[in-house]
Amino acid sequence: MRNITEHNITAAVIGQLAQCENPRLKEIMTLLVKHVHGFVREARLTEAEWMQGIEFLTATGQMCDGKRQEFILLSDTLGVSMLTVALNNAKPPGATESTVFGPFHVRGAPELALGADISAGAPGEPLFVQATVKGLDGEPVANALVDVWQADEDGFYDVQYKDSDQLRARAVLRSDAQGRVYFRSILPVAYPVPTDGPVGQMLSASGRHPWRPAHVHFMIQALGYETLITHVFRDGAPYLDSDVVFGVRSSLMAQFVHHASGRPPFGPATGGGFYTLDFDFVLNPAAPARRELP
Amino acid sequence: MRNITEHNITAAVIGQLAQCENPRLKEIMTLLVKHVHGFVREARLTEAEWMQGIEFLTATGQMCDGKRQEFILLSDTLGVSMLTVALNNAKPPGATESTVFGPFHVRGAPELALGADISAGAPGEPLFVQATVKGLDGEPVANALVDVWQADEDGFYDVQYKDSDQLRARAVLRSDAQGRVYFRSILPVAYPVPTDGPVGQMLSASGRHPWRPAHVHFMIQALGYETLITHVFRDGAPYLDSDVVFGVRSSLMAQFVHHASGRPPFGPATGGGFYTLDFDFVLNPAAPARRELP
Repeated sequence: MRNITEHNITAAVIGQLAQCENPRLKEIMTLLVKHVHGFVREARLTEAEWMQGIEFLTATGQMCDGKRQEFILLSDTLGVSMLTVALNNAKPPGATESTVFGPFHVRGAPELALGADISAGAPGEPLFVQATVKGLDGEPVANALVDVWQADEDGFYDVQYKDSDQLRARAVLRSDAQGRVYFRSILPVAYPVPTDGPVGQMLSASGRHPWRPAHVHFMIQALGYETLITHVFRDGAPYLDSDVVFGVRSSLMAQFVHHASGRPPFGPATGGGFYTLDFDFVLNPAAPARRELP
Repeated sequence: MRNITEHNITAAVIGQLAQCENPRLKEIMTLLVKHVHGFVREARLTEAEWMQGIEFLTATGQMCDGKRQEFILLSDTLGVSMLTVALNNAKPPGATESTVFGPFHVRGAPELALGADISAGAPGEPLFVQATVKGLDGEPVANALVDVWQADEDGFYDVQYKDSDQLRARAVLRSDAQGRVYFRSILPVAYPVPTDGPVGQMLSASGRHPWRPAHVHFMIQALGYETLITHVFRDGAPYLDSDVVFGVRSSLMAQFVHHASGRPPFGPATGGGFYTLDFDFVLNPAAPARRELP
């Protein structure tokens, strides 16, 4: 096209995709161009604003390293991650809903026995979790692999401590024949997402706080069921109405019950108060595998 | 908001901008969220595709350094740069149109006398440029500062040679009392944008070539006129119909006339063939300056 204007440029860019041999890439690029141009056109972005955008994206990429993923944080704080999760994890009524994965999962966390204390010394008030893993018909799911991870009472995940490689307040457990999973951990608290990078500046300039409400992460894998990636949120705690990454779903809120004294439901006494959480996870059956033709 | 779904999340994200004190930032963020969500929703991006997007943006940021700006290249190749230029530089009929600035301008290029050879030894066939700078009414614009820069016959700008800091085929000239600007340079040729980064991979995967049609860059600044950032394209040369950065406008195409022998229009003989280019730049008056209240 030889006479590009603000009116024909979107068609010109999409026209250059005519030779794209991957139909899905062609579809994605076409829609990307359409919507990005729509943004620039509707915002009537000035050249100085465009340059600010370029500098912001560049700084966001340059903030990333092996331990920090600022583009995922940007996606999270703009609701793009949760939108993608919601689009791809529609569940039937009764199945536990999904939420964002977050950046703090670690592959290869220690596999611990049911009843273990997974805190490994992470600071926090004792929490006793008694969960079940079931199918939609109520059948117990045995031998489900349950990944658990969470922040400590200072609001930090183990991997955020630069001077330590110790894994704390995370574990992998397996459900028993009755679908039960139980372990001791610590009470989760609200924490801010990292604010020392471009995303922190964006939140601050936009008048937004950086806080996530208190939650424990779960990823549950079991043969014949869809993998469930979710949180359990602490009902009644701050920021449930304004999670900076938009991960809250009412069905994922639960009571973390305080006990001023007494015997915990399993394991040795704590010598003081503790919390308990009961939660039932309901897994959606996996789509049936395609039979291969012989 | 406590029960985020794919249907209410866009409103939830925009709702978190309620406390943004900068009205323009609030407007831009609102439109950004609306259009980015619109893209994810219409494309029904899978979680694996989302992750590919995160990795692409991260690699694009990490390709940037003092000499390379891969996000500008991404913006250029998606037509976003040219759209921004077109939106912000509407010109009245008769005024020379703008096009993309590109990444190869250098501040502080040498100011040379009219008639000088600006190539400074850059390889290429001799080109004699005779231009005028005028206003919309045809009045000559004297003392206009005219920045010129271009690639050599190998398709490289001087700043792309990693082993040399020499500035070649670029200069600043000043128009004379009749608005004339003339200099010797070299014939521009088509060249590919850098393809050794994520944008090169994107072009290749999309079935797009990386070429720009032959052109000379101009930036013209004069008191009382809007600064003009543009190119003059070589009419009849390849890629005018498929410029990878969508910068071509018919009004900016001109004949680069070949002379097999003879005397050039100014300066010493070349001892062989040469090209000539005549072009009239017409500047748009600047918006009148606001009178300050006393």
